[in-house]
Amino acid sequence: MQGYQTDDIIYALATGWGKSALAIVRVSGKGCIARFCAAFSRPSALKEAKNATLVHGFVTDAEGNAVDEVIVSVYRAPHGYTGDDALDISSHGSPLVVRDILSTLGALGFRAAERGEFTYRAFLHGKMDLTQAEAVEELVDSASDCGRKMALDRLRGSLGSRLKDLREEFLSVMASIEVQLDYSEDELDAFVFPRERLEKLAGRIDAIAATYRFGRLYGSGANVVLAGRTNVGKSSLFNLLLQKRRSIVSDVPGTTRDYIEEAYVIDGIPVRLYDTAGLRESGDAVEKEGIDRTKELLGSADLVVYLVEEGDAVPKESEHTLIVWSKSDLKHHDGLCVSSVTGDGIAALKSAIGEKLRSAMPLDMEADVVVQSQRQHDLLVKSSQAIRGALELADQRVPLDIVAAMLQQGLESLGEIIGTVTTEDILDKIFSGFCVGK
Amino acid sequence: MQGYQTDDIIYALATGWGKSALAIVRVSGKGCIARFCAAFSRPSALKEAKNATLVHGFVTDAEGNAVDEVIVSVYRAPHGYTGDDALDISSHGSPLVVRDILSTLGALGFRAAERGEFTYRAFLHGKMDLTQAEAVEELVDSASDCGRKMALDRLRGSLGSRLKDLREEFLSVMASIEVQLDYSEDELDAFVFPRERLEKLAGRIDAIAATYRFGRLYGSGANVVLAGRTNVGKSSLFNLLLQKRRSIVSDVPGTTRDYIEEAYVIDGIPVRLYDTAGLRESGDAVEKEGIDRTKELLGSADLVVYLVEEGDAVPKESEHTLIVWSKSDLKHHDGLCVSSVTGDGIAALKSAIGEKLRSAMPLDMEADVVVQSQRQHDLLVKSSQAIRGALELADQRVPLDIVAAMLQQGLESLGEIIGTVTTEDILDKIFSGFCVGK
Repeated sequence: MQGYQTDDIIYALATGWGKSALAIVRVSGKGCIARFCAAFSRPSALKEAKNATLVHGFVTDAEGNAVDEVIVSVYRAPHGYTGDDALDISSHGSPLVVRDILSTLGALGFRAAERGEFTYRAFLHGKMDLTQAEAVEELVDSASDCGRKMALDRLRGSLGSRLKDLREEFLSVMASIEVQLDYSEDELDAFVFPRERLEKLAGRIDAIAATYRFGRLYGSGANVVLAGRTNVGKSSLFNLLLQKRRSIVSDVPGTTRDYIEEAYVIDGIPVRLYDTAGLRESGDAVEKEGIDRTKELLGSADLVVYLVEEGDAVPKESEHTLIVWSKSDLKHHDGLCVSSVTGDGIAALKSAIGEKLRSAMPLDMEADVVVQSQRQHDLLVKSSQAIRGALELADQRVPLDIVAAMLQQGLESLGEIIGTVTTEDILDKIFSGFCVGK
Repeated sequence: MQGYQTDDIIYALATGWGKSALAIVRVSGKGCIARFCAAFSRPSALKEAKNATLVHGFVTDAEGNAVDEVIVSVYRAPHGYTGDDALDISSHGSPLVVRDILSTLGALGFRAAERGEFTYRAFLHGKMDLTQAEAVEELVDSASDCGRKMALDRLRGSLGSRLKDLREEFLSVMASIEVQLDYSEDELDAFVFPRERLEKLAGRIDAIAATYRFGRLYGSGANVVLAGRTNVGKSSLFNLLLQKRRSIVSDVPGTTRDYIEEAYVIDGIPVRLYDTAGLRESGDAVEKEGIDRTKELLGSADLVVYLVEEGDAVPKESEHTLIVWSKSDLKHHDGLCVSSVTGDGIAALKSAIGEKLRSAMPLDMEADVVVQSQRQHDLLVKSSQAIRGALELADQRVPLDIVAAMLQQGLESLGEIIGTVTTEDILDKIFSGFCVGK
């Protein structure tokens, strides 16, 4: 990793900042237990502490003053999260105490950890593969129960072990091809190209890649945008869905100008719901700006809920839009109807949104592993494309060493997902998105 | 404690709420280790775990699904914070994970802890006296380094052991008096009333009580209010002190209406600094309301920094006010002068504020224990008053059993501070101000 050293001692606050009962400062690196003794009231107890034990004492600063009474969790290599010697220092949850503990650690020559640096070391020490490392952050970030469960499965190695199986099979097919490369061309007639095995392999890889839309939906969530003419009732519906008076509602067309965004869960799917400026020609500069922003949002939406009323031109429904008749208390239409006055139709609208979001995904519900990371998805696609490309080359009777080179690329893409093959750039991208302290 | 049971198992999130690397859920109560096994993937490892050890595993919900991978710190009675069996469950710092761990514990029949309930149990089990229990919260709340150090001293028992010494001496004097009560009146001539010992005792108690203003100042901080006529330059000075553009500054008199409050440290003293609406007759309703609020603030201020300029009626300086000439770049006056344009005089103003706050306290800097709690202060005063009252009664030759009864009250006040004598009301007041999880 470009910015990361791996032979020094790192530390970070691992719990949330602010007043609370407890705070945990995490320390890891070769020799950290012995060196931390210089700032601890019971150095010999700490020195003699076995792996996975707790030691009570005081952190003391450079002048020997007590900073706080703490409980230290001791992990000895190769145990613990990182595989290095490590300490979790549990102190009182005061920002001042935490600040002084951190500066005490700094004074010992320890270095403040970068994002994800503890997990990075765990990966380097073989404590987890890259899919597990990514799952750590996906778990903390999870925005729905379903997303959390899938992340925990990946953390436990479900995806990693499936990919390792696929890689074994890939290696085995490759071996059967490469052994042929050692023979002379005229001996090749006896060789049967393992087309069926490769097709099956590509199919299995594609099936995992296809879980990505599902994983993303339940993991990081979907953007749902309420759109429609001014005064059609978007803000009223928005408030009704959220069950709070979030948007200002008035009879004046153009009341909403800045778009308003709220997190929301529909049918177990985490959703960011947007109320937007109504679409119309406007002379007001602020409203115009609002309408421009609405248009931008529509472009990146997973689903647009298009609100219409009597007299509106009704757009055609698509995979990514849902047409909803507003003000059904005034006039009823065929199709989805809601009334923000009576609340009629809200439950049906929620189901329709959930269904629409899910139907956009060709999910094989049999999938017992789910991919949530775009990186993993893209590498899976790359891997199966390489296999299919190699199959085409084989059909065209291209020399076998060229076919094998293409397959080799596919194998490497698969290895990159679990971290068998890595580059510094890849690692940098993965770990820099983490929480500090992980 | 009125609302607290003490024989059940309690739990609480002990770290801050929100996304972070780690979160700690704390559990305590008789039998909690055995009962938590039902929700843990490695029940036998947990059951056999010794005190002060760490156990790795998964929390599982009622359906047996993994909720998260965790490290459990195991404390066995009488060790640990509360003196009961206890567990600290260290999970990933995801709000969804924490929520599910909490509900898993609820499903086991454990009860969500009230504020301070863990510390309350620690007190009940004799793990700490009341001054130490109060110091836990004072430490978390501390707003300056000095306040934090004093709280940590109290947590380590400095104040408690000093008071226990005083209580021993008090008991010994009481014993020498009470032994006389068993004799008949005519034998009393031989008895010398221990006036000198009691006077000395009252003096020692008073000396500790006197540290309260100092303790409060460095612990919870002082309110400093900027006041003065409209447009005298309060908001400019406020922004300059804070080194940020916090208050809106304009030439229009009455710009500041709502008062503005910011935390700030002057000379090591935590200060809440207030910028206020300028004092003048105003016809504007909002400004009038602002001026009323200014007047309220002035009443509760520890120090009013009164800004004046050429032509103003200059109020007399008192123990709680500081007169400061504004706009010294335009005209210089004798006394404290500041210019928010040039920054001149700011350093001198800060020192003057610090000095004024400290000078209001008759602190014996020799004090090696410092009281920060009003409860403790008031009981100390009550105790020494009872002694002095008893001395007066003795002078008036009031019967000795009445003198002894008054001394007994003083002794009980002292006992109340450390918790030798308690009532449910007192405990309720103390612990209900705590963080949950402590």
